[in-house]
Amino acid sequence: MTGGVYLTDWGQRAEALLNDLAACSEPGPGVTRLPFTPEHRAALDILQTAMETAGLMVSLDAAGTLIGRRGGPPGSKTFLMGSHQDSVREGGAYDGVMGVVLPILALEKLRDESADLPFAVEVLAFADEEGVRFPTALIGSRALAGTFEQSVLDMRDGNGVTLRDAMESFGLEPSGIGALRRDPDDIIGFLETHIEQGPFLEHEDEAIGVVTAICGIERHEIKVTGETGHAGTLPMKGRRDALVGAAALVLEVEKLGQQTADLRATVGALTVEPDVVNAVPRAVRMTSEFRSPGDDIRSKAGETLHDFAQNLATRRSLTIEAKRTYVQVAQPCSENLSRRLISAAVQSGARGLLLPSGATHDASAMADLCPIAMQFVRCRGGVSHKPEELASAKDMALATSALSRFLTSIGHDVDRDDRGSL
Amino acid sequence: MTGGVYLTDWGQRAEALLNDLAACSEPGPGVTRLPFTPEHRAALDILQTAMETAGLMVSLDAAGTLIGRRGGPPGSKTFLMGSHQDSVREGGAYDGVMGVVLPILALEKLRDESADLPFAVEVLAFADEEGVRFPTALIGSRALAGTFEQSVLDMRDGNGVTLRDAMESFGLEPSGIGALRRDPDDIIGFLETHIEQGPFLEHEDEAIGVVTAICGIERHEIKVTGETGHAGTLPMKGRRDALVGAAALVLEVEKLGQQTADLRATVGALTVEPDVVNAVPRAVRMTSEFRSPGDDIRSKAGETLHDFAQNLATRRSLTIEAKRTYVQVAQPCSENLSRRLISAAVQSGARGLLLPSGATHDASAMADLCPIAMQFVRCRGGVSHKPEELASAKDMALATSALSRFLTSIGHDVDRDDRGSL
Repeated sequence: MTGGVYLTDWGQRAEALLNDLAACSEPGPGVTRLPFTPEHRAALDILQTAMETAGLMVSLDAAGTLIGRRGGPPGSKTFLMGSHQDSVREGGAYDGVMGVVLPILALEKLRDESADLPFAVEVLAFADEEGVRFPTALIGSRALAGTFEQSVLDMRDGNGVTLRDAMESFGLEPSGIGALRRDPDDIIGFLETHIEQGPFLEHEDEAIGVVTAICGIERHEIKVTGETGHAGTLPMKGRRDALVGAAALVLEVEKLGQQTADLRATVGALTVEPDVVNAVPRAVRMTSEFRSPGDDIRSKAGETLHDFAQNLATRRSLTIEAKRTYVQVAQPCSENLSRRLISAAVQSGARGLLLPSGATHDASAMADLCPIAMQFVRCRGGVSHKPEELASAKDMALATSALSRFLTSIGHDVDRDDRGSL
Repeated sequence: MTGGVYLTDWGQRAEALLNDLAACSEPGPGVTRLPFTPEHRAALDILQTAMETAGLMVSLDAAGTLIGRRGGPPGSKTFLMGSHQDSVREGGAYDGVMGVVLPILALEKLRDESADLPFAVEVLAFADEEGVRFPTALIGSRALAGTFEQSVLDMRDGNGVTLRDAMESFGLEPSGIGALRRDPDDIIGFLETHIEQGPFLEHEDEAIGVVTAICGIERHEIKVTGETGHAGTLPMKGRRDALVGAAALVLEVEKLGQQTADLRATVGALTVEPDVVNAVPRAVRMTSEFRSPGDDIRSKAGETLHDFAQNLATRRSLTIEAKRTYVQVAQPCSENLSRRLISAAVQSGARGLLLPSGATHDASAMADLCPIAMQFVRCRGGVSHKPEELASAKDMALATSALSRFLTSIGHDVDRDDRGSL
C-alpha cells in the first residue's frame, strides 16, 4: 500500500464516521446536536465504537465528556487531544466533532503501526462548547481545568430545564464534576484539531495550519438613546434619532477593524425601538466585539470606540451607554508543542503555515490546565456553523497523519509551563 | 358672562369629555382604544350623549362611523367635520377624538347662540384611522368617499379575526359600506381638527394653526444582503457586512432630509440577521420614508437614495434591493375653506399661522370626496402617540371658538372643486 492510498483511506474513514455522526441531529437543515439530548447519546455511541476499534478504553466522566484512553507505561504522564461533540443549530458536520474523530484515527493508525509512546493519550469528546442550549459553554474542558463554576448547574435552557436536571437525565452525576480536575503535573499538554472557520488556508491553497494564539475577545453592549416622534411631524432640525447615532458607531467599528493590524471588529447585533416605519427611533441596543491575538491592540480599540461614542453623544444630543460586558485574554499556544506540530505537518507534506484563531475553543479553557496547541484544517469557503461546512477527506487524511507524527515526536521532555507564542 | 370666561368653559367641557373618553381604554399606560372593541363602544356611548346634548341627531353608519347631524333648510347641502375615535397602543387622549369633541361643542355653542346656518352639519367619529388593529386604515372616511375596497374586509387582526367578523360582532352590517358613498354635489367640504403632533405651534407660542397641505408620503422597503461569517475568523478585508452597508444608507437618508427644504426623511425600522454578537451580519431589512408637501421634492429624494444604494452595493459587493412600497400624493387644502378658517382663527384671537401636516389624516381620504381644510391645535412638547400627549383647555377653547366662527362664515357659495393650496 502506497502512502497516498494509505492517506486517502484515513480520510475516507473520517468522512464515513462524520457522516454517521451528522445523522445524530434534530430534524432540519444541517446538524443540530445539543448537549445532553438523545442526539448527543447517539453520537457518543458512534464515538465509543470508533474508540474501541482504535483499542482505546472508553469512559464517560461526570461532565459528560467521553474519554478514550490509550494507556502508557506505569507512572507516565498523559497527553490530551480532542474537541466538542455539539453543534450550533443548523450547523455543520465538522465543527467540533472532527477534532474528536481525527485523533481517534491517529491513535488507531499508531496502534496498527505498533508505535510505542512513552506516555498515555486520551481523546476527549466534550459535551458542550457552543453554548447553544444553556447560557454557558466549555463545561467539560473547564471541569478538567478546575474552573467550572457550580452555580452554572442552575442555569436553564429555553424549556426551563436546568443544566443539573439535563445532566442527571443523561445519566450523569454533576456532583462529581469538582473531582474531575486534573493534576497539572500529570498532563503533558492538550492538542485540539478544528476546522479553520475562515478563508486563510483555502486562500493559501493549503490543507492544514498551526495556530499561534487564540485571540482575546472583548464585547460591549451599547445603548443609544434619543427621542422618538412622528416621522412626518418632527422637523429634521433638532431630531435626536438613535438609529442615526448607531449607524455612525457601526461605521466607526468597521473603520477600527480595517485600520488596525491584527484586529477584527464587528457589530453583530442591533435592535431598534420602536422599530416602525413612521417613527423616529427612540433607542438602539447594539453590540460591538473586538478580537486580537494582542491584548493591547484589543483594549485600545475598545477605548477608541468609547471616546468616539462620547463625542458622538455630545454632538448629536444622544445618551450613549457603553458597557464592556465580556473580556477574555488571548491564549498563546505552547511554543514547544507548536514547533513539533509544524514539523509533523511538514513531514506529512504540508508547509507548516501559522495563523491565529479568531474563535474560542475548548483549548482556551484547557490553557488553564496545561500547554495547548491547535491544528486547523482548511474548510471550503471558510464556512462554519452552516450545513455547507466541509473539510475534504484528503485534508483530513493529512491532518490525521500530522497528529500521529506529532504524537511520536513528543516525550516527557515537553515543558508544561511553556506558553510562549510562536 | 365675559368672553374670557365663556371660552374657558368650552375648554373645560372639552377637557372633561376627553378625560371620560380616555377611560375607554385597554388597561396599561395611556389610551389604547382599537376599533370594534368594547372600548370603542364605550367611547361611542359618551360621544352619543355629547352629540345629543348639543342637539344633534345621532346615527351609526355601516362602517362604524358615529354621526351627529344638525339639520339644514330643505334641500340644503351638508358640511362635514370630525376625526377618528381610535388611538394607537399606549397613545394619548387627544389624537383623533379631540377632533370629534371640539366640533360637537362648537355646534352646541351655535345652538346656544341660536345661530342660523344655511346648510346641514354633521360631526363624524370615524372608527379607525390609526390602522393599529388591522393592516388597513381610514375605513370610515374611505367609505364616505367611495374609495373603500371590499377586499379589506378579509384582513385579519393579530388574533386572526377578520375585519368583517369584528364589524359584525360590533353590530354593523359591512355589506352596507358600499352604499355609504356620499354624493359630492351634496357636500360642501370637510374640516378636521387635530393636535399638531409637532413642535411648530409651541415654538411659535401659538394655540392654533391652519394646514396648507397634507404631505405626500413614499415608503421604501430595503433589503441589504451580504455574507455572514464568524466575527473572529472572517478577516476584515473582503467582508460583505450587510449592517455596515445599512448604516451608510441610514446616514444618507438623514443627509437628504437635512439638506432638502420641505423634506422629512426617516429610517424608522431596521432588523439584522442573524443578529448575534459574534456573527458578521448577513442581511438587513430596513425602511425609508420621505414626506413632503411637494410631490416632486419627495420623489426626487426617493430616486437619489436609490442611486446612492446602487453605488454602495457595487462599492461594497452587497446586494441592495429597494422597493417603493407605498406612495400617497400630497393633498393641498382648499384655499377657500382655509381662508375662512384663518379669518375665524384671527377673530378668535389667534394669528392665523400656516403649516403643512406631516401626518396623514382622515382628511386625506375625504379629499377624494370634497374640499378639505384642517385646523391644528398646539400640543405640549409636540408629543403625540404617547400617554403624555396634551392640548390645553385654553387652546381647545380657542379652537372651538374658531370652529363656530368658521361655520357661521360659510354658505352655499363655497366652490367644492377648489383644491388650491394656500
